[in-house]
Amino acid sequence: MIEEKIKELGFEVPEVAKPLAAYIPAKRVGNLVMTSGQVPLVKGELKYAGKIGVELSEEEGQKAAEICALNCLAAIKGVIGNLDKIEEIVKLTVFVNNKDGFTAQPKVANGASELIGKIFGEKGLHARSAVGVSGLPINAPVEIEMIVKVNE
Amino acid sequence: MIEEKIKELGFEVPEVAKPLAAYIPAKRVGNLVMTSGQVPLVKGELKYAGKIGVELSEEEGQKAAEICALNCLAAIKGVIGNLDKIEEIVKLTVFVNNKDGFTAQPKVANGASELIGKIFGEKGLHARSAVGVSGLPINAPVEIEMIVKVNE
Amino acid sequence: MIEEKIKELGFEVPEVAKPLAAYIPAKRVGNLVMTSGQVPLVKGELKYAGKIGVELSEEEGQKAAEICALNCLAAIKGVIGNLDKIEEIVKLTVFVNNKDGFTAQPKVANGASELIGKIFGEKGLHARSAVGVSGLPINAPVEIEMIVKVNE
Repeated sequence: MIEEKIKELGFEVPEVAKPLAAYIPAKRVGNLVMTSGQVPLVKGELKYAGKIGVELSEEEGQKAAEICALNCLAAIKGVIGNLDKIEEIVKLTVFVNNKDGFTAQPKVANGASELIGKIFGEKGLHARSAVGVSGLPINAPVEIEMIVKVNE
Repeated sequence: MIEEKIKELGFEVPEVAKPLAAYIPAKRVGNLVMTSGQVPLVKGELKYAGKIGVELSEEEGQKAAEICALNCLAAIKGVIGNLDKIEEIVKLTVFVNNKDGFTAQPKVANGASELIGKIFGEKGLHARSAVGVSGLPINAPVEIEMIVKVNE
Repeated sequence: MIEEKIKELGFEVPEVAKPLAAYIPAKRVGNLVMTSGQVPLVKGELKYAGKIGVELSEEEGQKAAEICALNCLAAIKGVIGNLDKIEEIVKLTVFVNNKDGFTAQPKVANGASELIGKIFGEKGLHARSAVGVSGLPINAPVEIEMIVKVNE
């Protein structure tokens, strides 16, 4: 059902992105699943590259954040098999690769938070931190990690 | 009792700050409560703005960190109703908006850690990370997220 | 056994590093232990200092990340007494102090992830985020925090 909802919204859950290095896409501990930081890779290619406020606009940052959120869901699906097992979205941490002094991280991060809201409704209400960083892997504009609670 | 202690120290637990975007101030999962990143808003206005080492001194950063910590407690109170239910402070993550190359994040973060220590005593002993970032929402100098354990 | 394995690999678990400020090296909550951010201190002295891409190479960053990982293990040992009680490594968050626009955080972070893999094998498979920051405490090139699950 969650995957159908995602399709209705015009998106899809991708294949889980191959980690960029010596780690795994997500890890379950008890009834929590914590993802690794996900960047906006689509079929192995970075869909958006560069810094928000330099090469990319805030709107492009939002689109990148949407992709990161979908990649988080893909990573979680890889661990639990079926996204319907997600009981609640707990937390997003959003790292925005921005020009020094940029202040619109919440707007960029909303690309992820609003999509999660549309997909999960009440279950999608999450805590969130959004901060600006001085560089991200493979020049990604956004990196997002997600914690969810699963119902067995 | 915790709120009385906070008043004795000359502070108060504010109304919970309205999130800057599409998320909630804190989320409970099991007996943990995780806050969203809190910035030094007082009654909806940023009390300190700008970068530590540029517009603001380290001492002003400490004051800002105190406010962030109180806003974390406000967010937690919004979820559990009464701060006396906090069994332990588990972790603070402190993001300092600083001039590139700044190295005194621990001093700034102590504004939060020391206040937590005064309020909670032994129960307030927490793990902590403090890092320098290249920008924060609405030009906040500090953003703090907190994890606490509650005793139902 | 874990400590023997670490010695076989040519490393050792140091004395737990004294926190730089008003917090503790690691905190247990349920069967999780969360460390504070650890920097590459060796016997109280920073082994590597400065920014990756400025004063330090990526390879030096990897060496620094190894030391951070060992300091995380030392912090955990301080809480649980014996590293053999670690059931799984859950998550690493790796903050790299780099030149603005640096993109090889995964390579630097692999210094930690690969060492954890050698020490813990299958139990060491962890989620990870790696991001670039604009400054770290005492001018450390890398700061790492670790979450592990312990089997009582």
